[in-house]
Amino acid sequence: MVSLPSVRVLRVGHRFVRDDRTLTHLCLTSRALGAEAIYLEEVEPDIARSISRVNATWGGDFQVIEEKSWRDVIRKAKKEARTVVHLTMYGVPIQEKVSELRKSKKLLVVVGGPKVPREVYFAADYNIAVTSQPHSETAALAIALHEIQNGEELKKDFGKSTLRIIPKDRGKRVIRS
Amino acid sequence: MVSLPSVRVLRVGHRFVRDDRTLTHLCLTSRALGAEAIYLEEVEPDIARSISRVNATWGGDFQVIEEKSWRDVIRKAKKEARTVVHLTMYGVPIQEKVSELRKSKKLLVVVGGPKVPREVYFAADYNIAVTSQPHSETAALAIALHEIQNGEELKKDFGKSTLRIIPKDRGKRVIRS
Repeated sequence: MVSLPSVRVLRVGHRFVRDDRTLTHLCLTSRALGAEAIYLEEVEPDIARSISRVNATWGGDFQVIEEKSWRDVIRKAKKEARTVVHLTMYGVPIQEKVSELRKSKKLLVVVGGPKVPREVYFAADYNIAVTSQPHSETAALAIALHEIQNGEELKKDFGKSTLRIIPKDRGKRVIRS
Repeated sequence: MVSLPSVRVLRVGHRFVRDDRTLTHLCLTSRALGAEAIYLEEVEPDIARSISRVNATWGGDFQVIEEKSWRDVIRKAKKEARTVVHLTMYGVPIQEKVSELRKSKKLLVVVGGPKVPREVYFAADYNIAVTSQPHSETAALAIALHEIQNGEELKKDFGKSTLRIIPKDRGKRVIRS
């Protein structure tokens, strides 16, 4: 297996409604698709619990990190020579930039939302669109992680876990270790 | 541009909590990523309004169809020689089947959830996993639509629309017609 780049995810943007389900989906999608960590402005105990339970059951050590200042996350990323990729429907189509992005060994993928501060567009190295149509930040993140890692993330081994699925044409097969 | 296959999406599974946001995201993701229509068991007026507003503003004629019986949707799909692809973390990794799936000109992608009836696994032509890890049905759908259409869906032209984004390296540019 090809070695995967180090990918971290940052969610920017204050929440006007409490929307734990979207945040949980962003965390789980980041984890399943090979990211190491996600930074959130606020980590509700429910979310932290739910992700650590998923790690315990299904493997890996994906981290959910509370970090009030998105500026600090981006600043630190730049210090580490991490390529900062902001996902926005206003950006350049991902298919035009993906070969450049695949050259990076370390990336920070920034997921905004309609209210993302304008500054984020200028702090990012790339503003990237997964279509110029409105849809879901979870879907955009999924396709970005998948394209950046060239599909290799789908083969990721999550190591030691309590449960493991054995893929099956029909029905379910799960083994417990 | 390569011509896209005809892709329809079906959401199966009763909702135990009202979760309009997830349903809206499934609709918008299906639309943005080239599907023609989504079948839902119940279409809340909010969702119908929101999607028809998106069509009016951003183009295309994506349909949200209320259909109480998922069995009927699958039956009809089979009559039309539509390949039925059920997305489940218990299925066969998508990367192992994608070249077969790309041969289909017409598909029905079935999105389940934890409580999907066992019968769905047997009614589907393929049970396909986007990783064997728990994550988000929206993310799994996004990657499945993207892989099935080989990325061509990202170039889809939505035709006549009120607003259109001109991709930009920094900031936002939208033209009104």
